[in-house]
Amino acid sequence: MKHSRTLAQLIDALRGLPGVGPKTAQRMAFHLLQDGRGAAQTLATALSAALAGVRRCSRCRMLTDEELCSICAAPQRDPSLLCVVESPADVVAVELSGSYRGRYFVLMGHLSPLDGVGPEQLGARELEALLAQGQVAELILATNPTVEGEATAHFLSELALRRGIRASRIAHGVPVGGELEYVDGGTLAHALSGRQILG
Amino acid sequence: MKHSRTLAQLIDALRGLPGVGPKTAQRMAFHLLQDGRGAAQTLATALSAALAGVRRCSRCRMLTDEELCSICAAPQRDPSLLCVVESPADVVAVELSGSYRGRYFVLMGHLSPLDGVGPEQLGARELEALLAQGQVAELILATNPTVEGEATAHFLSELALRRGIRASRIAHGVPVGGELEYVDGGTLAHALSGRQILG
Repeated sequence: MKHSRTLAQLIDALRGLPGVGPKTAQRMAFHLLQDGRGAAQTLATALSAALAGVRRCSRCRMLTDEELCSICAAPQRDPSLLCVVESPADVVAVELSGSYRGRYFVLMGHLSPLDGVGPEQLGARELEALLAQGQVAELILATNPTVEGEATAHFLSELALRRGIRASRIAHGVPVGGELEYVDGGTLAHALSGRQILG
Repeated sequence: MKHSRTLAQLIDALRGLPGVGPKTAQRMAFHLLQDGRGAAQTLATALSAALAGVRRCSRCRMLTDEELCSICAAPQRDPSLLCVVESPADVVAVELSGSYRGRYFVLMGHLSPLDGVGPEQLGARELEALLAQGQVAELILATNPTVEGEATAHFLSELALRRGIRASRIAHGVPVGGELEYVDGGTLAHALSGRQILG
């Protein structure tokens, strides 16, 4: 059946969200427009506030309300370690691991020439400026283990090495708690080639 | 890690959507605020338009932009059949089946005294006014086969019968294409008690 115009537009807009298909979008729209409409009002207000208030951290390109994000602004973070990730969600994931005390640089994507994403779009110039300040001793490349992520890591490692800064790639291998039997071949190959000598 | 204030508010608002947990909400927020921000702008505009434009059909309580929804306004729909459903999504589902040419009445819920939802909230008064017009010959009760849905159907059937209007309940049984082996006991009990004599 045909929805009314504004309802159809809302459903279309909701389909733009990641992981939302036509049926989920319709369910969300009906939910938003049911009785009180409080949910729709809250979301509209939050969206406007975010559009007006959220910007990129001037140092690491993370999403934030301030000039500097909370991590870049924290004095206890180690400025000699810089972890490069593809997206803000990756920053959240690394932070949740609780095992990293350095700073980040958010590419907001990976090299993808066919989509018009080159070094410029990933903030390579800002990253070079950051490395030129001389505080960073190691660039930790934590892009995704995909073809594009590896290419991006390779490109950035050369950029660091040209300045005499150490570049490292996070380890890929068998997930902790995973069983060898169920791990894919590519991961196993990584785990073998990245093996560490004991003792 | 702690998100900035407006970002956290947006994530909270997105969690209000059905089926969206904290992780999905975060992913949606990052998606909305990535580069162009076109998605966020589109959604904000669509939400405002829907909040301003979408209302209930004055006859059947379906969501619509007009005084009457497209179904109530269509002259070829049979006014003698009135199908009562719990939600706008149910109207869409019945319409997609292509097997119904009457009109609808949308309760926007089911009887749930503990949540403060009584006949008043379900539009029982509007439904009675509609039945009083004398056009409706049969009230088809298509509420969900849950305890609340059954109670609501029972309540509405009495409302129709008091006016001498036929009330019917949609059939519950084995889904077409389903296999008896995998159908739950409640459904099978319904299928048996609702069996139809052949020949």
